[in-house]
Amino acid sequence: MFSEILKNVRKKSPLVHCITNYVTVNDCANILLACGGSPIMADDPSEVEEITSICGGLDINIGTLNKNTIPSMFLAGKKANELNHPVVLDPVGAGASSLRTNTARELMEKVRLTVIRGNISEIKTLALGSGTTKGVDADIADAVTEENLDEVINFAKNFAKETRAIIAITGTIDIVCDAERAYVIRNGHPMMSKITGSGCMLTAMITAYLVANSGKELEATAAAVSAMGLCGELAYKKLEETKAGNSTYRNYLIDEIYNLTGEKLKGGTKFEVR
Amino acid sequence: MFSEILKNVRKKSPLVHCITNYVTVNDCANILLACGGSPIMADDPSEVEEITSICGGLDINIGTLNKNTIPSMFLAGKKANELNHPVVLDPVGAGASSLRTNTARELMEKVRLTVIRGNISEIKTLALGSGTTKGVDADIADAVTEENLDEVINFAKNFAKETRAIIAITGTIDIVCDAERAYVIRNGHPMMSKITGSGCMLTAMITAYLVANSGKELEATAAAVSAMGLCGELAYKKLEETKAGNSTYRNYLIDEIYNLTGEKLKGGTKFEVR
Amino acid sequence: MFSEILKNVRKKSPLVHCITNYVTVNDCANILLACGGSPIMADDPSEVEEITSICGGLDINIGTLNKNTIPSMFLAGKKANELNHPVVLDPVGAGASSLRTNTARELMEKVRLTVIRGNISEIKTLALGSGTTKGVDADIADAVTEENLDEVINFAKNFAKETRAIIAITGTIDIVCDAERAYVIRNGHPMMSKITGSGCMLTAMITAYLVANSGKELEATAAAVSAMGLCGELAYKKLEETKAGNSTYRNYLIDEIYNLTGEKLKGGTKFEVR
Repeated sequence: MFSEILKNVRKKSPLVHCITNYVTVNDCANILLACGGSPIMADDPSEVEEITSICGGLDINIGTLNKNTIPSMFLAGKKANELNHPVVLDPVGAGASSLRTNTARELMEKVRLTVIRGNISEIKTLALGSGTTKGVDADIADAVTEENLDEVINFAKNFAKETRAIIAITGTIDIVCDAERAYVIRNGHPMMSKITGSGCMLTAMITAYLVANSGKELEATAAAVSAMGLCGELAYKKLEETKAGNSTYRNYLIDEIYNLTGEKLKGGTKFEVR
Repeated sequence: MFSEILKNVRKKSPLVHCITNYVTVNDCANILLACGGSPIMADDPSEVEEITSICGGLDINIGTLNKNTIPSMFLAGKKANELNHPVVLDPVGAGASSLRTNTARELMEKVRLTVIRGNISEIKTLALGSGTTKGVDADIADAVTEENLDEVINFAKNFAKETRAIIAITGTIDIVCDAERAYVIRNGHPMMSKITGSGCMLTAMITAYLVANSGKELEATAAAVSAMGLCGELAYKKLEETKAGNSTYRNYLIDEIYNLTGEKLKGGTKFEVR
Repeated sequence: MFSEILKNVRKKSPLVHCITNYVTVNDCANILLACGGSPIMADDPSEVEEITSICGGLDINIGTLNKNTIPSMFLAGKKANELNHPVVLDPVGAGASSLRTNTARELMEKVRLTVIRGNISEIKTLALGSGTTKGVDADIADAVTEENLDEVINFAKNFAKETRAIIAITGTIDIVCDAERAYVIRNGHPMMSKITGSGCMLTAMITAYLVANSGKELEATAAAVSAMGLCGELAYKKLEETKAGNSTYRNYLIDEIYNLTGEKLKGGTKFEVR
């Protein structure tokens, strides 16, 4: 299944409109190209509706949001809704400032979101107003473990029901669910947290996967999450050989996405459905 | 000839003012350093004229343009004109939104441009109002082929005549021309389209080449285009050895520009003049 | 001593708020992760005070400053002062435009700065109003040499006394001083000037070092400067083996910071105190 999903991305080469932060934007563009998609970044209110119209999907990432780009997120989001394009929200740093928390919440109210992807602290902030946060990283107190996994899955399914969006909580264990079904994904490597942008890149890639796999949103999201995690593992294997550091690891990670095939994904994916 | 042009860049270390998008800006800075130039990025209206004044040339790239940076493009452009500095326009995504198309057109009207460099869809949009576009990439319908090459050269020469700028259309076959003469350049590799920024980097590099080769604008532009294409080929050779992906390819490409010598360029350049 | 300082950074994992330019921001985030810290970038006036409050230190870098981010620098700076967080100023391009010079000077007046780090031209501009500048690089006329070293140290100590900040002047020879004592550091490699961002990355890293070493500000700054220089040397050794270029060198540099240990730093640091 995942391998078909990946092949659709390579075949259809989906064009993704990203309104995203300037920290990891270059990596987001290169991961979109690596997975088979095509990126266009545009964030001025006077052009975002037109740009969204020529694309297949919209990635809204609130990192480094500002007074010029926030209105753009709403304009593009509404236009994407009109056109039935998938919209993915990455609430980077929700909980770290009221501007971020409130913007993310208002986006949830006013834009129909296909997927919300964040770390557990960000998602808890949006769902409960109670996530702790360590800047843009999840707080250790929030960690998803084998012990609290069932609880977190229930929480995520409820949040999916409430928002009518697919919820993707990524971390040591990844959860991708709608109101009914949860993919529990055990791909990935701790090294991914030693580079900036692994979350942002994943969100961009999820958008491309959704565009190319209309009607299979849950599976497409899970496939993208698993693919990124698997490539994180493969990249780490290379790192063990070369003894390089985190900057080179970033290149390896994008490279592995570039070289990922349906076969490799099929062989390396680790998930269960609950 | 091209080798002399390259040596002038390394010798004179031209300072280039870039008003450019935040997606590929880091790559633009590093390619300028790689080719022997020196970058300074500044885009606020209250400083761009001063910044342009201390530089030798101006690179205006309209990717991720916004209401704050658009006025800067005009202010810097006019100042550069006053000082007789070369100005290069990269109309990223012209055709993808009216903001981009109109800004590029207005720049063509109000700023004397030394070179306009884009893909065929962007250039057609500016010349004819009729280019199709696939976001920031050229549409396949517009591709320059051996079959329509003469036609495209004529089109480009006419556009050069009309704009009094050198036109650089890059893609599988590159065309660099003024109203009279066209360099048809067959360097480059398809892998260059698998990274973000190969066009933006080229535009920045063209600016440095122009600054260091005053009076030889057409040749300098052709040399930069050929150099970038050749380095794309050399970078691909390395990629075949290491089996890495697009992120590493980006590094190889900039590295090759860093290590390019006049000799290597002389031996590898593939062009004809029509 | 330096090795203890480095270990504190890895142990405490300081969260650093960066208001920084969009050219090298990704490298700043990755170097912070590499050295053991954690980055958060935020520059809108409506969130910077909150973001600064959850962090341990503030890095203000004026490259690509604009009318939206300048007020943020003051707001965050004052908040950081209230909270007794270290604040580091990187006056990128001071001397290149009045906007940059004036903003840096006003920051010096209105915000209590822990460290000011720049090249000799930038620091001279701030101290004397007389530095020459070559865009964002130091002008050759300003170079610190063995001949004028004593003179520059005196200048720097006086500037430190006047500003009550630690002054870090980096270049071929680095000087880190307060009003009384100067570390003269002879680590580093000329290749570091062939990539964009080595200065910006250092400033971000200094901030992390300060947060994790409260009460030892001078030593922490010197340790960060020495660590960066040493890693520049180690990265160059790798470059000699692989014959790659400046883009790969950037990766090597960040990688070396990632792999730097207290032992390695102890063995490689080259400094004297005057």
